[in-house]
Amino acid sequence: MIDLRSDTCSRPSSAMREAMAWAEVGDDVYGDDPTVRALEDRTARLLGKEDAVFMPSGTMTNQVGIRVHTEPGDAVLFEQSAHVYLLEGGAPSAYSGVLPRLLPGTRGIFTAEAVHAAVGSPHPFFPSTVPAPVRLLCVENTHNNGGGTVWPLEDIEAVAAAGRERSLALHLDGARLWHASAFSGVDEAAYAAPFDTVSVCFSKALGAPVGSCLAGPADLIARARRFKQQIGGGFRQAGIVAAGALHALEHHRERLNETHAHARWFAEGVAAFEGIDLDPLAVQTNIVRFRLTNGRAAAFVEEMHRRGVHALPAGPHEVRAVFCLDIGEEETRGAIDVVARTLAEPN
Amino acid sequence: MIDLRSDTCSRPSSAMREAMAWAEVGDDVYGDDPTVRALEDRTARLLGKEDAVFMPSGTMTNQVGIRVHTEPGDAVLFEQSAHVYLLEGGAPSAYSGVLPRLLPGTRGIFTAEAVHAAVGSPHPFFPSTVPAPVRLLCVENTHNNGGGTVWPLEDIEAVAAAGRERSLALHLDGARLWHASAFSGVDEAAYAAPFDTVSVCFSKALGAPVGSCLAGPADLIARARRFKQQIGGGFRQAGIVAAGALHALEHHRERLNETHAHARWFAEGVAAFEGIDLDPLAVQTNIVRFRLTNGRAAAFVEEMHRRGVHALPAGPHEVRAVFCLDIGEEETRGAIDVVARTLAEPN
Amino acid sequence: MIDLRSDTCSRPSSAMREAMAWAEVGDDVYGDDPTVRALEDRTARLLGKEDAVFMPSGTMTNQVGIRVHTEPGDAVLFEQSAHVYLLEGGAPSAYSGVLPRLLPGTRGIFTAEAVHAAVGSPHPFFPSTVPAPVRLLCVENTHNNGGGTVWPLEDIEAVAAAGRERSLALHLDGARLWHASAFSGVDEAAYAAPFDTVSVCFSKALGAPVGSCLAGPADLIARARRFKQQIGGGFRQAGIVAAGALHALEHHRERLNETHAHARWFAEGVAAFEGIDLDPLAVQTNIVRFRLTNGRAAAFVEEMHRRGVHALPAGPHEVRAVFCLDIGEEETRGAIDVVARTLAEPN
Amino acid sequence: MIDLRSDTCSRPSSAMREAMAWAEVGDDVYGDDPTVRALEDRTARLLGKEDAVFMPSGTMTNQVGIRVHTEPGDAVLFEQSAHVYLLEGGAPSAYSGVLPRLLPGTRGIFTAEAVHAAVGSPHPFFPSTVPAPVRLLCVENTHNNGGGTVWPLEDIEAVAAAGRERSLALHLDGARLWHASAFSGVDEAAYAAPFDTVSVCFSKALGAPVGSCLAGPADLIARARRFKQQIGGGFRQAGIVAAGALHALEHHRERLNETHAHARWFAEGVAAFEGIDLDPLAVQTNIVRFRLTNGRAAAFVEEMHRRGVHALPAGPHEVRAVFCLDIGEEETRGAIDVVARTLAEPN
Repeated sequence: MIDLRSDTCSRPSSAMREAMAWAEVGDDVYGDDPTVRALEDRTARLLGKEDAVFMPSGTMTNQVGIRVHTEPGDAVLFEQSAHVYLLEGGAPSAYSGVLPRLLPGTRGIFTAEAVHAAVGSPHPFFPSTVPAPVRLLCVENTHNNGGGTVWPLEDIEAVAAAGRERSLALHLDGARLWHASAFSGVDEAAYAAPFDTVSVCFSKALGAPVGSCLAGPADLIARARRFKQQIGGGFRQAGIVAAGALHALEHHRERLNETHAHARWFAEGVAAFEGIDLDPLAVQTNIVRFRLTNGRAAAFVEEMHRRGVHALPAGPHEVRAVFCLDIGEEETRGAIDVVARTLAEPN
Repeated sequence: MIDLRSDTCSRPSSAMREAMAWAEVGDDVYGDDPTVRALEDRTARLLGKEDAVFMPSGTMTNQVGIRVHTEPGDAVLFEQSAHVYLLEGGAPSAYSGVLPRLLPGTRGIFTAEAVHAAVGSPHPFFPSTVPAPVRLLCVENTHNNGGGTVWPLEDIEAVAAAGRERSLALHLDGARLWHASAFSGVDEAAYAAPFDTVSVCFSKALGAPVGSCLAGPADLIARARRFKQQIGGGFRQAGIVAAGALHALEHHRERLNETHAHARWFAEGVAAFEGIDLDPLAVQTNIVRFRLTNGRAAAFVEEMHRRGVHALPAGPHEVRAVFCLDIGEEETRGAIDVVARTLAEPN
Repeated sequence: MIDLRSDTCSRPSSAMREAMAWAEVGDDVYGDDPTVRALEDRTARLLGKEDAVFMPSGTMTNQVGIRVHTEPGDAVLFEQSAHVYLLEGGAPSAYSGVLPRLLPGTRGIFTAEAVHAAVGSPHPFFPSTVPAPVRLLCVENTHNNGGGTVWPLEDIEAVAAAGRERSLALHLDGARLWHASAFSGVDEAAYAAPFDTVSVCFSKALGAPVGSCLAGPADLIARARRFKQQIGGGFRQAGIVAAGALHALEHHRERLNETHAHARWFAEGVAAFEGIDLDPLAVQTNIVRFRLTNGRAAAFVEEMHRRGVHALPAGPHEVRAVFCLDIGEEETRGAIDVVARTLAEPN
Repeated sequence: MIDLRSDTCSRPSSAMREAMAWAEVGDDVYGDDPTVRALEDRTARLLGKEDAVFMPSGTMTNQVGIRVHTEPGDAVLFEQSAHVYLLEGGAPSAYSGVLPRLLPGTRGIFTAEAVHAAVGSPHPFFPSTVPAPVRLLCVENTHNNGGGTVWPLEDIEAVAAAGRERSLALHLDGARLWHASAFSGVDEAAYAAPFDTVSVCFSKALGAPVGSCLAGPADLIARARRFKQQIGGGFRQAGIVAAGALHALEHHRERLNETHAHARWFAEGVAAFEGIDLDPLAVQTNIVRFRLTNGRAAAFVEEMHRRGVHALPAGPHEVRAVFCLDIGEEETRGAIDVVARTLAEPN
């Protein structure tokens, strides 16, 4: 089976498994795990932040990221298809009690004007107690539902500046920030600079089995450690999996452009087929989303699956395929072929 | 001052004050207030529901209405400019912990298709634990931010049927349901019929000083009484204000079309002015929203205020004026005149 | 029926009804109700605080009082039988998300040592992220479940000082603070002085139909106004009921000692009966709790009820009777008589 | 350093590391990790439940366990020193919004009468909306703060039966349930039988680096999977650490009595010293708590630490030492010696 459902499905390599097997560990709840500390330090440095905290998942780093900046009843600005808003189990409301306010975006990218419009201009004639006060702006880079879109540095700086102007806290969902840097050449710290807190994942195309970091100023990360523990993120000898994450940072980050090339190749391949609506130039990183001009995505991915390629429906007529190191040339060619055959004989 | 900020600013009449002054009362927390019980019974009958519970505000009846149907982490469908979503202090998230999912609407009216699209079609390839499950659909009739829009009965029945088909609970924010009935001739019970719970207000154009009811099946209203008490809605000898609400139901409901006529007259008056963008035919009830084609709403309402008319900015270039029984012919004429003069001499 | 269930069952007097009937009102959500503002100012002055905000109930003023000082996951110290903890629908956890930590008390009075013991001495060997941080100390004066107990000024100052020493915020549930002052001669402002926020009720023995105030520093009261609105406390022309509260402050506060005398007289009366365990000297204000040495409270109050006196069971063998202005000499004598007869012939 | 702070500090053995290194894995969020599934199945069978779900920590399995049974505003019964109440970051209130109601216990063991007393007997004269309804009873076995106490089977069955009689859901915090079974000979399934849900940990004295399971009926575990994902417990190729947990189940469970013997030996050793108050017969499993009759725990553990033994203060005068497989004969003898020397020369 060629698994294109998500880069989260990537498997650890043998070298990564060795690194994990012999990792030095301690009880992370007591702050004693040297491998976790090493990963946190490395990540903080990489992102240009004072400190970082390792957690079991990107959902946790994002939702704790939201939590540290807000209290229940605050409003938070999300792009309308943001992962933290749509695909994290309702946690912004369930855990932080914050009201999502949505920004219109194009492939996940929005403008400073959208930020200003959403915050609005409170007028003294209208009771200030009636609307929820906007406290936080979240940005996602690359943008998953946008199709792995990379924010141009100046655009992300502009929206962050708008947020700052409106006294908003700023959180970056950088689950796939590595990809944005690999594509654009802008380093992660430059992307992270305008934000208070940044979430990054090691368990996606980077290939580590488990884990994410939230980075930011020391006081907010101390606060994040409290909320991490509260919701059960205190995993003890987490150094085992942190070693996999460290290995991924050292060895797989530089290989992301291989993965991007496979994704682009796949995109170009299937874009040529009748029945597929896709602009391959819009495929910047490792996520490919295409539209079936004729036929429903659910049936299509089921048929692909019977032919050995596992992809996801991403809308009534949209299919999503995500690439990682496990998907090499052969798998990419195979996947293109299965799309071709599925188009030719839908069942 | 001609007060067009909101119909919530309406003042109790002398007859209403008399009714309140001599109301029979008891401790409502103990279920002992006969006037509250009378109002609850009257409202339940009027809306064709088993029971109703009286609360201090429409925010409370709406938010408890959401609470009885949901648990934290559930998603709730709101029209994108719904009052319960935008203008109730973030309570859906802060109090019920629910994730708002937004439906696009036209003047607050949306379609069954929008409901189906928002619920989507979960596919077994995608983990069901990742998105928040949609549990509740909220509809607002008349729609405040839509401009007091009245739902055609067949349209509201269609969206409710779509919700039912998707196993959603259904809540109607009928803060101004009386207006929808006055305008359309469809009675309140017919509008309420497709919904599990219905919130109605007595303190808006109906003219009572305080209070709203949530109506629905007996088990949900029992549940609502618990949540009402929990958030401090247990106001003791509430019969004092319930008497005002009962008076309003008996005497002011039938006069809403007078108010609608004044709003329409005002709309026609100002629509004729250069510098105002407004379709008077869209003014169905007591809310008038108009756009300044030239100039900002904030400055405009401030200048109107200096000239004796109090209205609200409702967007960078939009002004809102709301009518109630306190605004008669003379006040309406005066308000048109002030708009004219403000357009002529902005400062 | 002689109603001793609660002083919340007190009915408004004719003079109070007149005051309400002709109250000057406005929309309190817009800050426009002059009678509400007058009540808030009067209460703030009386309590020696910068500002106060009027709400529909004591549950709301207490729970918003907790909310303004905390965020979810904070721990709050309550005496183990505190009203805010036990009798407000679980709101500390449901609305503020705070963890109750309980202090042992005697008739509701606890010591500075208990505060220090509950906060404890965090040690660097133990992860600070594991326990919930204690942020707030709540004190109740008079203490309802303690039997209307009055805190000696030096004792309440001592616990407040302990809280301050441990950097806790301080909230006083003064639902019946008027009684503490009437009994002790210590004025309300002196009792309120050590606390950040103070909640007081007008709808209990003071006899107003509806309402409570939360008083405190201006910034916290502004914050309280936001939370009041969020949970539906924005009741519009609330001046109607605020007028009743103002009347109660002016005319009934000075009469509380009459009520206390009736409660004491009742206590002395029933304490003399065999089968009743009660120290009448412990009855300081308007709440009488007595133990049946033989027999269950549930059956006893039901039998009393059949004989025309309505009291509450307050434990398996405990009965509670609460006095207010509606209970005069005749009713008190009648109540003693009914207790006697119920003891004599239990059914 | 001899580390007696907690059995959570235990390190994975070489054999366990091998098992983890070569574990078969998949994306657990997609339900694809075979090692996780194997651990969940094994745990469910062991506990006699339909299903189980693997999570990163015992805090998460406990708090999700509470969450599946409740909604905000429900009351939950905890023994007064329960870990889920005191040492999980306030999560019962912060995440589930439930109100803790506390049961008095002796070394963590309480009675059926305490359960009945806490639920009480609601009387129709008193408004049912005022107190929080009790929905869930939590029991901890072994009881950590009680000193690793083992519930006699008949006692735990009695409290569970009382809970059932009062229509409460039942959750067992069995973080160290393995120890209760090792000590008593009662198997885990027998202890688990009266409960709806059971939480067990692999990362404590069992020696696995990471992870816990929540077991129960299939519908509740499906619900738990949703909440696990929502709070960030969706750790991807969790099979890596699940393999360690499986290894611990197979190889370390049977060795717990070795650890218990060391704890008992230590207890007997230090109980003989003047200055220590400790009944060694009360040490049933791997936790030893002793009282300093003279001197403060904080200074004492600091001095012990300087001499090479790391223990925790567990009260002003109480010290806690916890044993695991890493603590053998030599370490135990060393620890006794350090206590002796610290008593002899406090600094």
